[in-house]
Amino acid sequence: MRTQVGIVGAGPAGLLLSHLLARRGIDSVVLEARSRSYVEHRVRAGVLEHPTAQLLREIGVGDRMDAMGMRHEGISLRFDGEDHRIDFVGLVGKGIVVYGQQEVVKDLIAARLRDGGIIEFEVTDVALHDIDTTSPSLSYTDVTGVARDLHCDVIAGCDGYHGVARQAYRPREYERTYPFGWLGVLAKAAPTHDELIYSAAERGFALYSMRSPEVTRLYLQVPPDEDACAWSDAAIWDELGARLAAEGFTLNEGPFLERPSVTGMRSMVAEPMRHGRLFLAGDAAHIVPPTGAKGMNLAVADVWVLADALEGFFARGSQAGLDEYSTTCLRRVWRAEHFSWWMTSMLHRFDPATESGDPFGRRLQLSQLRYTVSSHAAATSLAENYVGLPFGANT
Amino acid sequence: MRTQVGIVGAGPAGLLLSHLLARRGIDSVVLEARSRSYVEHRVRAGVLEHPTAQLLREIGVGDRMDAMGMRHEGISLRFDGEDHRIDFVGLVGKGIVVYGQQEVVKDLIAARLRDGGIIEFEVTDVALHDIDTTSPSLSYTDVTGVARDLHCDVIAGCDGYHGVARQAYRPREYERTYPFGWLGVLAKAAPTHDELIYSAAERGFALYSMRSPEVTRLYLQVPPDEDACAWSDAAIWDELGARLAAEGFTLNEGPFLERPSVTGMRSMVAEPMRHGRLFLAGDAAHIVPPTGAKGMNLAVADVWVLADALEGFFARGSQAGLDEYSTTCLRRVWRAEHFSWWMTSMLHRFDPATESGDPFGRRLQLSQLRYTVSSHAAATSLAENYVGLPFGANT
Repeated sequence: MRTQVGIVGAGPAGLLLSHLLARRGIDSVVLEARSRSYVEHRVRAGVLEHPTAQLLREIGVGDRMDAMGMRHEGISLRFDGEDHRIDFVGLVGKGIVVYGQQEVVKDLIAARLRDGGIIEFEVTDVALHDIDTTSPSLSYTDVTGVARDLHCDVIAGCDGYHGVARQAYRPREYERTYPFGWLGVLAKAAPTHDELIYSAAERGFALYSMRSPEVTRLYLQVPPDEDACAWSDAAIWDELGARLAAEGFTLNEGPFLERPSVTGMRSMVAEPMRHGRLFLAGDAAHIVPPTGAKGMNLAVADVWVLADALEGFFARGSQAGLDEYSTTCLRRVWRAEHFSWWMTSMLHRFDPATESGDPFGRRLQLSQLRYTVSSHAAATSLAENYVGLPFGANT
Repeated sequence: MRTQVGIVGAGPAGLLLSHLLARRGIDSVVLEARSRSYVEHRVRAGVLEHPTAQLLREIGVGDRMDAMGMRHEGISLRFDGEDHRIDFVGLVGKGIVVYGQQEVVKDLIAARLRDGGIIEFEVTDVALHDIDTTSPSLSYTDVTGVARDLHCDVIAGCDGYHGVARQAYRPREYERTYPFGWLGVLAKAAPTHDELIYSAAERGFALYSMRSPEVTRLYLQVPPDEDACAWSDAAIWDELGARLAAEGFTLNEGPFLERPSVTGMRSMVAEPMRHGRLFLAGDAAHIVPPTGAKGMNLAVADVWVLADALEGFFARGSQAGLDEYSTTCLRRVWRAEHFSWWMTSMLHRFDPATESGDPFGRRLQLSQLRYTVSSHAAATSLAENYVGLPFGANT
């Protein structure tokens, strides 16, 4: 089999790239290790930046998002028992859309299949070959057990942090591990507040968010190696109640829709994001802690740049976009890494049990929080990063 | 001897407080361990925030500053061999004045002596007594060797980081030590650039500043325990040249006007700043690393708040201002500590020799720098902190 662009991974990056390329008349095939049902129900990120939401609308995959997604015009930073709203629309004229990543995946799969796109699910043994040449290929075993080769001009590695694409050239990896994890729960409970609340409580960070008018998504800062099973449902609600306590705020409780789990928090950036005819995009190239809600949005920004570069390559034989791909993406990636680090550092307790760890640092945190909510410039800085800087910009 | 306010220390904090009180009809006596000549020639800070410069004008001690000081409308951040100007006046409508702390001290001493104020220089054995009562006192030995007691209603501890005032009640001290020092030189060389240049060079931080049209003040980041004697004059100029290198920039060299010295960088905040009838102000209560140019300005802000509080106390018998003094000052102090930490962290190399220390952190630094100079909101945030937030504000 032959195609122009072989895409490894049917997450948001791979599917969106395939869709963007199809609109430009460029053929692609997407290979995915998991089943369609699995990727369509995998709960991950849930915040779409303004440029992400705009792009999905422009390319015809925004209808369900606009019908089912929740448009938010700001967030609240909660500390000292009070809410301080960051008014995104008032500050920068843009908002965000809360819409689960798995819903974006459903929309993109539906669009690709409707347009005759090829997505092979449940493939195994994916391997990359000849990426240093002008005729790379992918070998794999399809869902029926038949070994196949996919010859292509370019390979896009969109197979996530644990994928095989990055291993094909082993780029330098810049890493940071944060000393906490998030215990996440999805509860069948109607949200009592209509925007996200980032609570920098004395007992540790908590995030109040929602997935629908019936479902609340909640997170608690915990040690990175915390065993989620050590937390009873009642203990989780008690701790959420304590960390989210504020005048006039009530927390609706309800049964958990999935088993609570703990996610460690870490950053990684692979440099460069391109080697020969292989281009990494999304989590395959970089991961961020979830505090800044940047993961899926970075993937979207990457493939937006890549689709343009590939159009230049296939339509006009230009290498320029491909040569600039890594540098262009990394500027925005590092901006997001910095913003995610900044939000993470400002909101989490580095020493939840006692102040003995770094009392000076805690005072800096509180000063940073007060400044962020009292200075127009500082609030604008948070807002412009949160709603998303323009794709491809020199930030 | 008796006075209303006994002031320990004839630095900017103590002298300005004495002047502000005199304008309100409140008596004070200033005790200083050093000679007049010493404090008038001690080279320290050199940047006056906008509110500091405005205050000095309003209270009649701004004439020499306006004649001899250099008004700056911005600074440059230099990295990747390029200058990126932060236009203070364009961003926030205010600038700064470069004017040595020792000149402010000269102006204030002249004003106090002109107005009949009492400053006792070269006193020894200063001790604080009965600060928990309504009639505290200071004992000391005057310049002639005579032991004296100064009875007062209130004591202001303006005697710096190493002074005795803070030891009288041992407040909690929040501290941070930074892993570098500044090697500072004062050179008889005409400045070749008319604003400060903060250079985040690969080889380490360097600061280009000036004290007059004939004198350049320069700093190099070095290890905190560096021996200044290990640096020859030529080696200092070489390193300055390397770290300040930029297209079209030349560094004027000239003889050093004082022996190069290394200052360690550290932060300290004492909480609370008041105990009974003792009130700390300036370096006695808090120190900052010099990167944000905040030290003297914080001292000025403290005594501005204290003078108001003391006027309420002496004129109307109100305790309210005194009771709020520490909380009001600490808000601004912590803002300045955070800003100074932020500038310090962004500009210094934490691993000058190699990238092995924290390559991820270095990339965050560069992203932060690029963002600060490309985002209007981020540049405004730097500008409003640098030119100085309003005195007494809830920041």
